[in-house]
Amino acid sequence: MGTALCRPLVDSGWNVRLWGTWLDDHLVDAIDAGQPHPHTNVPAAKGITTFRSAQLEDALDGANVVVMAVASVGVPKVTELAAHGIARADAIWLTSKGFWTDPDGRIKLLPDAIRTIAAGQDAKVPPLVAIAGPVKANECGAGMPTATVFSSSDFEVAKKYAGMTSTDSYAIAAANDEVGVELCAPLKNVYAIALGISDGLGEATGTPHHNLKAATFAQAIKELALLCKHLGGHSETAYALAGVGDLEVTGLSGRNKIYGSRIGRGESPEHALQEMDRLEQTVEGVPASGLATKLVEQRAQEIVDQLPLLHCVARILEGDVGDVRSALVAAALPAKG
Amino acid sequence: MGTALCRPLVDSGWNVRLWGTWLDDHLVDAIDAGQPHPHTNVPAAKGITTFRSAQLEDALDGANVVVMAVASVGVPKVTELAAHGIARADAIWLTSKGFWTDPDGRIKLLPDAIRTIAAGQDAKVPPLVAIAGPVKANECGAGMPTATVFSSSDFEVAKKYAGMTSTDSYAIAAANDEVGVELCAPLKNVYAIALGISDGLGEATGTPHHNLKAATFAQAIKELALLCKHLGGHSETAYALAGVGDLEVTGLSGRNKIYGSRIGRGESPEHALQEMDRLEQTVEGVPASGLATKLVEQRAQEIVDQLPLLHCVARILEGDVGDVRSALVAAALPAKG
Repeated sequence: MGTALCRPLVDSGWNVRLWGTWLDDHLVDAIDAGQPHPHTNVPAAKGITTFRSAQLEDALDGANVVVMAVASVGVPKVTELAAHGIARADAIWLTSKGFWTDPDGRIKLLPDAIRTIAAGQDAKVPPLVAIAGPVKANECGAGMPTATVFSSSDFEVAKKYAGMTSTDSYAIAAANDEVGVELCAPLKNVYAIALGISDGLGEATGTPHHNLKAATFAQAIKELALLCKHLGGHSETAYALAGVGDLEVTGLSGRNKIYGSRIGRGESPEHALQEMDRLEQTVEGVPASGLATKLVEQRAQEIVDQLPLLHCVARILEGDVGDVRSALVAAALPAKG
Repeated sequence: MGTALCRPLVDSGWNVRLWGTWLDDHLVDAIDAGQPHPHTNVPAAKGITTFRSAQLEDALDGANVVVMAVASVGVPKVTELAAHGIARADAIWLTSKGFWTDPDGRIKLLPDAIRTIAAGQDAKVPPLVAIAGPVKANECGAGMPTATVFSSSDFEVAKKYAGMTSTDSYAIAAANDEVGVELCAPLKNVYAIALGISDGLGEATGTPHHNLKAATFAQAIKELALLCKHLGGHSETAYALAGVGDLEVTGLSGRNKIYGSRIGRGESPEHALQEMDRLEQTVEGVPASGLATKLVEQRAQEIVDQLPLLHCVARILEGDVGDVRSALVAAALPAKG
């Protein structure tokens, strides 16, 4: 996503430095050789400057904005390494999506993770812009029409950067709900597994389950909105690009949906995950599912009964469900009048 | 949809009479002969009693509830014929979806149409339950898992019938927003055309436009919510089964989406419609588009600038748009900065 984002950044006039972690040097090599990015098959935007993993200090030196776009598992380590560079910037933007378990076992959203970890380095994180929405990296990197959300606790900050970065094909809605955006981003991967299960049930039986998929979609949005509100964000975030928009595209294609459809077709969750691993397809919704139910346990126990779909996916992934179809139907359909 | 609905009605213990209009006698013949319904290819529920078009009075005699499920174009005539039978019932349920132009040229929602037309026959319409949501008739008729909304201005009425009619596979959410449900039902067909255009652009160019489709989806929900609120309904209706749920299933498949994808692939709206007609595929979103823009002109002029997608589809269908892709991108993506 970092490489993909270079495209609208360059188009909107930013001077862009692209740094890759110790896992990414070969990707940066490919970009420097003028080859398409090996993951998206799209060339990087022209005019960017690249930095290898060992050149983090150079990449950060004098940066106005630092964009954190690594996989969520890499956020703690990269934050540690970059903390002082981040502290010197005017703002940090965040496209990484996930949860973080703090040393006391508490589940936190990534902005809190970054602030906590940076504080451990005596570094203060500048205003943070959470970036989310229905953005497939290959399309964004190719300059295809894309809508996204820049959300910040400080609405003025969100508006400022949205205004500076919007182009005709990369349109940015400014918002002031960091929590909601950061919740929707990983949770939509969990719910996309449920949408995939509906698809898989249709494939397995030869009878489409479109009504079930649509009911699942609506229930997912209902639960997202409840969680946003309960954890200090806004329901409206779930009803807009970062919620309905992102769930639409994630449930249409993508690895989480594909993984779910394998389960719907009758594969065990374990076997389906092994197959995805074998194909080098990371299924982000799987760890997110466990962490999300833990988050609910810690901070949203009062609404646990209103989140049947979230818990249904978790139970299925844990292998606790014999009849996946009945479990999904019970969780996705409104409770009996 | 009338025949399909017999399935959950019978399953929940209702004694069901199925009447067909003068266009439907052959369908009723097929049902009586034990054949599947010619349109859905699904057999009617066992235990219903059928009535031919000439037997309307018999069908209505002593009915506790009358369900109006004819195509919207037939609602005025059937209301006229059935007005006194409807008036004698405890309630009328409505699954027809569309708009009605009254004799003064004002666009009205179907419940108002029914009340106005019945009043012209000196008949008073009993409490009305508007039924909507993501319900494909073939799946509902086959007893597949389905979620729907029973919405009534009188919430107690909605709850009562939802409770009496829910089954394990036909789950009903009760709501108290007649206006919102009646707006979402025909409008989602208009917005599904826009979703289809995104798909068609992808097919024409060989490059998926998934980000655009997701942005279009989110913009559609935003406009639905605005319209619901402005016209006396609730935004929440757009965020639930009758909005996001129904738009999901309609944008996934269905005639309106298929029609839109033809336009996206480069067919003119006129030619695409001729082809759909030739295949006997009614595209309900086409008349709904014109009527919806007229409704906005009459009753929502204040928010016209916030409905770019609705108007974009209308202009495209009128043949006023040369570059469909640019027009859709401009309408679906958030306004710049």
